[in-house]
Amino acid sequence: MNRGRPGSGPLRTGLIGAGRMGSFHAATLATRLDCTELVAIADVDEERAASLAGDLGVPRVYADAEDLLADGQVEAVVIAAPARAHAALVLGALEAGKAVFCEKPMAVTSEEAEQVVRAARGSRLAVQVGFNRRFAPDFVAAREAAANGELGSVHLLRSLTRDPGLAAPERVPAWTIFLETLIHDFDMLAFLNPGASAVEVFALADALVAPAYKEHGLLDTAMVTVRFSNGALAVAEASFRAVYGYDVRAEVFGSGGMVTAGAPQRGAAVRYSDAGALQETVRADTELFADAYVAELSAFAAAVQGGAAPAVGPADAQAALGIALACVESVRRHAPVRVAGDRAFTGPGAAEGSEVMTLTP
Amino acid sequence: MNRGRPGSGPLRTGLIGAGRMGSFHAATLATRLDCTELVAIADVDEERAASLAGDLGVPRVYADAEDLLADGQVEAVVIAAPARAHAALVLGALEAGKAVFCEKPMAVTSEEAEQVVRAARGSRLAVQVGFNRRFAPDFVAAREAAANGELGSVHLLRSLTRDPGLAAPERVPAWTIFLETLIHDFDMLAFLNPGASAVEVFALADALVAPAYKEHGLLDTAMVTVRFSNGALAVAEASFRAVYGYDVRAEVFGSGGMVTAGAPQRGAAVRYSDAGALQETVRADTELFADAYVAELSAFAAAVQGGAAPAVGPADAQAALGIALACVESVRRHAPVRVAGDRAFTGPGAAEGSEVMTLTP
Amino acid sequence: MNRGRPGSGPLRTGLIGAGRMGSFHAATLATRLDCTELVAIADVDEERAASLAGDLGVPRVYADAEDLLADGQVEAVVIAAPARAHAALVLGALEAGKAVFCEKPMAVTSEEAEQVVRAARGSRLAVQVGFNRRFAPDFVAAREAAANGELGSVHLLRSLTRDPGLAAPERVPAWTIFLETLIHDFDMLAFLNPGASAVEVFALADALVAPAYKEHGLLDTAMVTVRFSNGALAVAEASFRAVYGYDVRAEVFGSGGMVTAGAPQRGAAVRYSDAGALQETVRADTELFADAYVAELSAFAAAVQGGAAPAVGPADAQAALGIALACVESVRRHAPVRVAGDRAFTGPGAAEGSEVMTLTP
Amino acid sequence: MNRGRPGSGPLRTGLIGAGRMGSFHAATLATRLDCTELVAIADVDEERAASLAGDLGVPRVYADAEDLLADGQVEAVVIAAPARAHAALVLGALEAGKAVFCEKPMAVTSEEAEQVVRAARGSRLAVQVGFNRRFAPDFVAAREAAANGELGSVHLLRSLTRDPGLAAPERVPAWTIFLETLIHDFDMLAFLNPGASAVEVFALADALVAPAYKEHGLLDTAMVTVRFSNGALAVAEASFRAVYGYDVRAEVFGSGGMVTAGAPQRGAAVRYSDAGALQETVRADTELFADAYVAELSAFAAAVQGGAAPAVGPADAQAALGIALACVESVRRHAPVRVAGDRAFTGPGAAEGSEVMTLTP
Repeated sequence: MNRGRPGSGPLRTGLIGAGRMGSFHAATLATRLDCTELVAIADVDEERAASLAGDLGVPRVYADAEDLLADGQVEAVVIAAPARAHAALVLGALEAGKAVFCEKPMAVTSEEAEQVVRAARGSRLAVQVGFNRRFAPDFVAAREAAANGELGSVHLLRSLTRDPGLAAPERVPAWTIFLETLIHDFDMLAFLNPGASAVEVFALADALVAPAYKEHGLLDTAMVTVRFSNGALAVAEASFRAVYGYDVRAEVFGSGGMVTAGAPQRGAAVRYSDAGALQETVRADTELFADAYVAELSAFAAAVQGGAAPAVGPADAQAALGIALACVESVRRHAPVRVAGDRAFTGPGAAEGSEVMTLTP
Repeated sequence: MNRGRPGSGPLRTGLIGAGRMGSFHAATLATRLDCTELVAIADVDEERAASLAGDLGVPRVYADAEDLLADGQVEAVVIAAPARAHAALVLGALEAGKAVFCEKPMAVTSEEAEQVVRAARGSRLAVQVGFNRRFAPDFVAAREAAANGELGSVHLLRSLTRDPGLAAPERVPAWTIFLETLIHDFDMLAFLNPGASAVEVFALADALVAPAYKEHGLLDTAMVTVRFSNGALAVAEASFRAVYGYDVRAEVFGSGGMVTAGAPQRGAAVRYSDAGALQETVRADTELFADAYVAELSAFAAAVQGGAAPAVGPADAQAALGIALACVESVRRHAPVRVAGDRAFTGPGAAEGSEVMTLTP
Repeated sequence: MNRGRPGSGPLRTGLIGAGRMGSFHAATLATRLDCTELVAIADVDEERAASLAGDLGVPRVYADAEDLLADGQVEAVVIAAPARAHAALVLGALEAGKAVFCEKPMAVTSEEAEQVVRAARGSRLAVQVGFNRRFAPDFVAAREAAANGELGSVHLLRSLTRDPGLAAPERVPAWTIFLETLIHDFDMLAFLNPGASAVEVFALADALVAPAYKEHGLLDTAMVTVRFSNGALAVAEASFRAVYGYDVRAEVFGSGGMVTAGAPQRGAAVRYSDAGALQETVRADTELFADAYVAELSAFAAAVQGGAAPAVGPADAQAALGIALACVESVRRHAPVRVAGDRAFTGPGAAEGSEVMTLTP
Repeated sequence: MNRGRPGSGPLRTGLIGAGRMGSFHAATLATRLDCTELVAIADVDEERAASLAGDLGVPRVYADAEDLLADGQVEAVVIAAPARAHAALVLGALEAGKAVFCEKPMAVTSEEAEQVVRAARGSRLAVQVGFNRRFAPDFVAAREAAANGELGSVHLLRSLTRDPGLAAPERVPAWTIFLETLIHDFDMLAFLNPGASAVEVFALADALVAPAYKEHGLLDTAMVTVRFSNGALAVAEASFRAVYGYDVRAEVFGSGGMVTAGAPQRGAAVRYSDAGALQETVRADTELFADAYVAELSAFAAAVQGGAAPAVGPADAQAALGIALACVESVRRHAPVRVAGDRAFTGPGAAEGSEVMTLTP
């Protein structure tokens, strides 16, 4: 490790949340990136924060995120706290004049999302949301194919997320599958269907992995169809338990062709035996998206230092949340539900049918 | 070519319908299979029938299917007429005492389907439906994985069909995408989810390929979610126009793993150039399923000659039609619709919600 | 099955050799192809011939191939006898005025090969050699890429054959790995390097699969480098025992790119479990090349009936044998050996070095 | 970036050679790894060294490698100078008491190699050689399959290197294809055939990419067969110009199965159009082996700091060089050549034939 560029220096960053994802980001900020320096860590579990700080040589530790936000040495914050706390922390950071990188979801209610969007717009500070797939080469290539016209008009899309396991089902909040897992897929569908917005959803969800937790509101398997303003039809799928590992894929089909992104296979090594031809599979998000997690923070630092708007910001998070909240309502009403704030839509079902979703979870 | 097994002799078969699919089946019956002999061809376009008969050395030609059904030399009939005529022809054939292989769909209304199921049951004659994918090795392997327990409980399924092109959109009947195209996928979803039946559907469809024909009722792009009696959630997709060829795939995901079947790539040859690594794609159903089309007729002949029930019969066709008809109703009502005749279901949405679909297209 | 084209009728074919490959060809001639009729079978084991004839409804059976060649009903013969008998049988057939399809190798000494080439040229009868890979789509695509210029100048080639097993090592003649197995690869290298001819070989071979049989002359593993007249360097590999099945691949690399053909994987189905992603592998030549074996006989019948020269004939077999014989000599001398009859060559090693191989095995 | 572990601190490293590879290693040492610190850079082109040092915040710059070796702040050196200078620099570094990471080849004559092996053994300092493929997951997986017994006895191997282009053919030293390119493959073959050593080679090489430079001794295409002490037969191939990118692959086939490693395809995204299914290809070594280049330096630092022997050291480099030098001799003599220092070998050709190669290039 060496010091950053003389003159400007690396971006002095504070981390809020020292859990699994926070620790990964911490290592990126402290050791993988030359353009950032991790100067403070806050976690309600102060011991956890201190231990991580010790490992990485981070000088300051806080139990209270407020204190980190008040730290004058901190130029930017990375928020990896529990999802329900994100919006308030982003607002606090903006008030304190810090640029913000916030893990997804940026917010879990439409009111929160609207507040953050307005605050970010008013502040002129950089706010980036952790939709890391936008920084993974496969998905970037798919987006390019959709954006450069080679796919023609987009007709059908698919995005899916299957996690390797469910650590503690009893602690997973209700609607997590839409608000924290499929939120990635909703953003990806928008990313892969440039210029269009989601109009309506129909969502199915069930507790198939851990039926015992269904009475506590846990839904671990979901399938959602989304109709977009350009007529494109999309499906998003999620499961909280794939025995073969971590499976994230997308597909875009249009009048000019198709592009697929992602595969469960890891590497190109193939072992042939009497049993057949075997390839290893990807086992974790931090493995599949190791480079993307670094790339998004690198892009964030570059945006802050260059005074540019981040590539993926509050409005994108708000759009994805709009789909997720409509899904919650769709499950509750067992009916198709229009996405709040969608653009004018004149396709089938436009006149009659689905009401605009209004409630918050 | 040589004569069939001495003693029994090949199955003397008559073909009704000398169009594209009929001609392919004719060649199979006449030249590819030793266990069948093509002895008569009927087509309303008698010249077309005569030309095909001439090419293949088939002795008798009819303009009227009734006459073929009355031909005492004919032991079994293969029906490849337009979809709307299928059910009446199957009923006529059973009445005439012939075994029947009928191209999908076997029927296009629930009344027709019910009549055929009853007639077949009463007749003790073999009736097989042309769900050819059940005879393609990839899909057989996927079924085996689902049936032998290695996938555990099935949670998520996908089946899709994308055709290379739309020959004459003005002549495609309304609802064809459900009744004739996705009918394959509905059967495949049932095949890949052994022991479960479809409970409810939600269907979206639009004219994205040929919007000009939408006012004539043409829907060329569709996405359907299906909930099964075991809780599994499925999606079926179709498009009438894939520029890269003929694309048929399926995926089954369960608590024990996943199996995927089908791929657009043809063969294993890869050409590497400055542009990247290029593989050819499959261009036609008669290419992708060439062997499956032969295998299904071979299995049919074996069933007839061995006195066994065909592997895929009227009840399977009725089940797939039930899903298709529910889709039609779902599009009309823009709401989830229960599948007629489904088994008891106690999942979410069981009490309230979707009515049972009753009308016929 | 139906009768062939009225007028001309199917090609009346006799089969010599009712072993594994002969039986496969018999079924093709009798039942898979409309353009051929199998009218006679000869095998020194007359019971074996009779049993096969019974299964397929073939009217005449001979213990002596001479009698089949004298049968006036036979227009063409397919030779699937042991390799050492091939050349004499081809010569006999030509003398009897029959067109000939001969399994590889057409001959096992250079004298035999020369005799057949001359006899075929003099007779104006069609003689085709069973280099079936030339009729497999992957390898045809590779050839096209090499021939149409998209690969530019060919620099490096690879062809390999790995058989699933060694039935009876004690009965495998010495040098079989070159004369009967790698002969396919030598032909394929020539096929994939259009316009060039083999100049020199260096061969290594050993008994690694079944070392106990080495003292009987068995070599079960071989690696050969071949230098071609256009400077291209090639490697051919063979093993008599691959536990994962039947593995035949080729690769051509040139100034304009690369093409690869063949893969051990069978179909596109993939099964994902905790162990990874598993695909089935090809297990037998009659599976991998099922269609190619039919296509080569179909092409042969078409050539005979159309009066055209077969696509792969005695000169090709002679060229492949030239490489195989040079390999035998290279192993004996443990030195590079020039291929007899090669064209003028001015590359490195042209002046000094390797002598022309003359002896016969 | 943050400071390393308190107490021990990062490994203070000096870099010799600020060219393409040196610059890549410099960035790794300075910014990607927390366990290393780049404290000095030496290059005969002092401006180039200074520019790189400026970019990375490296405090000290030298024109003379001797001065860097004399720098007391430097604990370890990374040598990325021209190949011909490697051995002398390693010897100098060892004399100065520094641990050494040396890019391949460690030496270009057998005398040099022997000197380094002895010096390293005497010094007890860590010496690691830049065989980066040993740190790439695909090749590690292949090695494991070979080492853990699942491949049984190894029978056939292949390793290949195709570079994207030839920057300045007029400046490429003679025999580079063996000494600097195929040296990777020779090491990989040994890595993938655990416990065996190379016994004999036969090498073919030509100027097919840039024939005009052949008279200057440039050989740009080569194919080598290697026989190992366990009887295994291997082929190594190289080309200096692959239009589709950077292609490095390996294959190990044994009595228990096969493993393949590497593929030209980059990522899993596939674009389907009327032209077929297209995947991007890898374009550079620093792309394909980006992580492996970091991993090897990380492993080096860990070895130095932990007092352990590096995983790949002078003896491995000596073994690979032995094969390369035998190839040079084989091309000169157009004959198989025994590898100096190989273990006792009793296979075919053991008694007669190839002499031991003695000369140096």
